[in-house]
Amino acid sequence: MPRVQVGIVGAGPAGLLLAHLLAGEGLEVAVLEARSREYLEQSPHRIRAGVLEWGSKEILAQAGLGDRMLVQGLEHRGVYLAFDGALHRLDFPALTEGRSIWVYGQQYLVQDLIRLYLEKGHAIHFEHEVVGLEALEAEPTLVYRTPQGQTERLVCEFVVGADGSHSLLRSQIPGAQVHQKTYPFAWLGILAQARPAAEELIYASHPRGFALFSMRSPSIARNYLQVPVEERLEDWPDARIWEELNRRLEGVAQVEPGPLLEKSLTPLRSMVVTPMQHGRFFLMGDAAHIVPPTGAKGMNLALCDAVLLYRAFKAYYQQKDPGPLEAYTPEALRHVWQAELFSYFMTTLLHTPADPFDDGLRQAHLRHLGQSPHLQRFLAENYVGLHTSGRYAGVLRAPVRG
Amino acid sequence: MPRVQVGIVGAGPAGLLLAHLLAGEGLEVAVLEARSREYLEQSPHRIRAGVLEWGSKEILAQAGLGDRMLVQGLEHRGVYLAFDGALHRLDFPALTEGRSIWVYGQQYLVQDLIRLYLEKGHAIHFEHEVVGLEALEAEPTLVYRTPQGQTERLVCEFVVGADGSHSLLRSQIPGAQVHQKTYPFAWLGILAQARPAAEELIYASHPRGFALFSMRSPSIARNYLQVPVEERLEDWPDARIWEELNRRLEGVAQVEPGPLLEKSLTPLRSMVVTPMQHGRFFLMGDAAHIVPPTGAKGMNLALCDAVLLYRAFKAYYQQKDPGPLEAYTPEALRHVWQAELFSYFMTTLLHTPADPFDDGLRQAHLRHLGQSPHLQRFLAENYVGLHTSGRYAGVLRAPVRG
Repeated sequence: MPRVQVGIVGAGPAGLLLAHLLAGEGLEVAVLEARSREYLEQSPHRIRAGVLEWGSKEILAQAGLGDRMLVQGLEHRGVYLAFDGALHRLDFPALTEGRSIWVYGQQYLVQDLIRLYLEKGHAIHFEHEVVGLEALEAEPTLVYRTPQGQTERLVCEFVVGADGSHSLLRSQIPGAQVHQKTYPFAWLGILAQARPAAEELIYASHPRGFALFSMRSPSIARNYLQVPVEERLEDWPDARIWEELNRRLEGVAQVEPGPLLEKSLTPLRSMVVTPMQHGRFFLMGDAAHIVPPTGAKGMNLALCDAVLLYRAFKAYYQQKDPGPLEAYTPEALRHVWQAELFSYFMTTLLHTPADPFDDGLRQAHLRHLGQSPHLQRFLAENYVGLHTSGRYAGVLRAPVRG
Repeated sequence: MPRVQVGIVGAGPAGLLLAHLLAGEGLEVAVLEARSREYLEQSPHRIRAGVLEWGSKEILAQAGLGDRMLVQGLEHRGVYLAFDGALHRLDFPALTEGRSIWVYGQQYLVQDLIRLYLEKGHAIHFEHEVVGLEALEAEPTLVYRTPQGQTERLVCEFVVGADGSHSLLRSQIPGAQVHQKTYPFAWLGILAQARPAAEELIYASHPRGFALFSMRSPSIARNYLQVPVEERLEDWPDARIWEELNRRLEGVAQVEPGPLLEKSLTPLRSMVVTPMQHGRFFLMGDAAHIVPPTGAKGMNLALCDAVLLYRAFKAYYQQKDPGPLEAYTPEALRHVWQAELFSYFMTTLLHTPADPFDDGLRQAHLRHLGQSPHLQRFLAENYVGLHTSGRYAGVLRAPVRG
C-alpha cells in the first residue's frame, strides 16, 4: 500500500461515506476494515439501526449513494406513541414543515456503500486489522495485520478512526475524557419474518415496560422489549417474546408471531468522547459517541461526522485552510450533544423506571406530550433530524451537481 | 368551639383561600393554626415564594382577595435566562397569548387573607396546635391544644390538612405512598435591602452553579445561590455571598450589595403523597406535595388544591354530589404532577451537576432552548401556569359575580 492522504479505519456507514466523498474530490484514501466483506454484508449481527433522518437521506441522495435506498427504503411520515391504552400519531410533515424519515436497514446501506465504492474503482482493504497507531502528531502511521497474518505499516497524512463502539483507536487521544451514562435496562430485540404491527413505528409505553414495533420491510418486523439489564437471552423462548410484545400492545394493536431471524440483547448506554481529535488523528461515529437506540440517532450521527470531516478535509486540501479541521471537535459536539439530549429524552420518556417518583414524572411528561403541540414539535423536529443531519443537508448539493 | 362542617388545619395560602371560599358559601368552617398571627405575618422565616401564576392571580382577584396584590404586586411579562455569557428573555405574553405572572410575596398574601377573613367576621384560631385526628372515616375529630395548654376536641364533618411541609396530618392516610426525590444541592437565599439585578427575574446558569435574581419590591432583592447540600450558613459571610452572586452574573448584569434582611439555606426536594385523601380527610398544599423552588410552583399548587376542594365541597353540600370529593386525588394529581415535571425540568436545566455527562446534556438543552421556539413556549406556558392554576382560572368567576 502506498502512502495516502487519509487513512480511514472502519468500513461502517461513517467510514464509507467519508471515503466516497474524499475519493470523489480526488484525494488518496485508504479504507482498512478488520472484518470480511461477507461478515459486514450478511451477518445477522450487522442488523442494526434502520431509521434515516430526513437530512441523512438528503446527504446520501446528494452524494449519489441513495439509489437503492430511495427505491427499497420506506418513507415514513409519522410515528405512533402508545400510552394510556391509546395510539397517538406524530405527523412529521405537519410538525416539521414537510420533513419525513426513511426506514432502511444499516446493513443495506453498508452493502450499497461498499458496492458503489468498488464500482468506482476504489479499494476497501477487508480483513486488514489495525493493531496500532504511531507518530500521530507528525506522520501518523497505521500498523495493521494483513489477511495473511503479516504486520505492515501505512503512512498517512491524516488518520480517521471510524472503528465502531469497541474502537481500538479511541484510546489514542491523550487526555480524552469519556463522559457516559448507563441505564438499568436493556433491549431484547428480534428480527422476524412477520408482518409489522403497523405501517409506521409504534413506541409503546406500558406499565410492564417499553416496547418498540418497527420493521425492515413490509414482511420483516423488528421489535424490541425493555428488559432488566441483567436479563439472559435463554430465559426468553420465542413464544414468551411474542406474548410479551402483545401484552405491551394491548388495546392498541396486535402482532402475529412469525419465524425469528435474529434475537439479541443490547444494554442501553450513552457516551461522548471529547476531544474527538488529536494532532492528525480524528474519531467519528460510534468510536466517538454512543446513544441509546430509542431516538434512532446512532447511524445518523455517524453520517453527520463524516460530512463535517469531509468539509474540513476539503478546506484543508483545496483551500489550504486548516481551520475546519482544527474546529472539528466543537462543531461535531453540537450535533452529538443534541442527539444525546434527544436520545436521553426519548429513553426516559418511554422506559418504565423502578422509582415511583421518576415514573410519576414520566407519565406527566407523556400526558403533556399528548396535549402540547410545542412538545410534539420538539419531538418531531428532533426525530427527523432538523438539528443534526438537517444542519448538513445542503452541504453536498453543490459538489454533486458540479 | 361548636361542631363544624369543615375543619381546616393550617392558615397558609391554601388553608386560608379554602376557608374564604367555603365561608363565602355559608358553610361552617373552623381554621386552626399552631403559630401566632404575628409569627405568620412578620417572621422572616415566613418569607417564602413570591411568584403568582397568571391563573393564581385570576383566582385571587375573582375571589375578591386580590386588591392589595393588584396594587402592590409587580406584573412581570417575562423572565431572563442567562447562559453562555448572554441574557435570553422569554416574553410571556408573546409565548402564551397574553399571559403574565405576578410577583407578590407569600407573606403579603397571607397577611391579606388573614385580614380579609377576620374583617368578614370569621375567626382564625391561632396558637391552636392540632396534635391528633380521630375517627377519620365516621366523624373526624381534631384534637388540639389551646393557647392555655388545654387539650380539646372539635368534631367536623370533614377535615382538611393544610399544615405545610412538616405536616403532622400527612401520616393520617393509611397506606399512603410518599414518592420523592432529593437533589445534591441547596439554595442559599438572601433577602436584602438592595436594588434587584434587573426589572425581571434572572435565572442564571453558570459553570460555578445556578443563581436566581429575584425581588420582593423595587428596593428589596431576593437572590439565591446553588450550593452543595452539605454547605453551612456560617461559611457564607455577607461579602462572600455578594461576590459569588456577581461572579455568576458576570458579563450579563451586576448587583450592588446592600444590608441583608435574611439569610437561609434550603435543600431542594420533590415529593408527592398519594392518595391525598382518606375517608372524610383531605390533604392539600405542601402537606401533600413539595416542589423544588426553581419553577416557582409551590404556592400556586396549594391554591389549585384549594379551588379544587372548594368545588368538591360545594358539589357535596349544595348538590348532594359526593363525586368530586371522591375524585379529588386523581384530579389534584393532574396539576401536581404537571408542576413536579416542570419544577424538575427547571431544576435540572439550570443547576450545575457533578457528572460531566449530565452537564453536557444540560448545556445542549439550554442551547436548544435558546433556539427552539417550541421549547420556549413549553417553558413559558408552564411558568405562567396554563396547565396548573390556568385550569381553574375561570372557576370562581360565576360565584364572585353572582
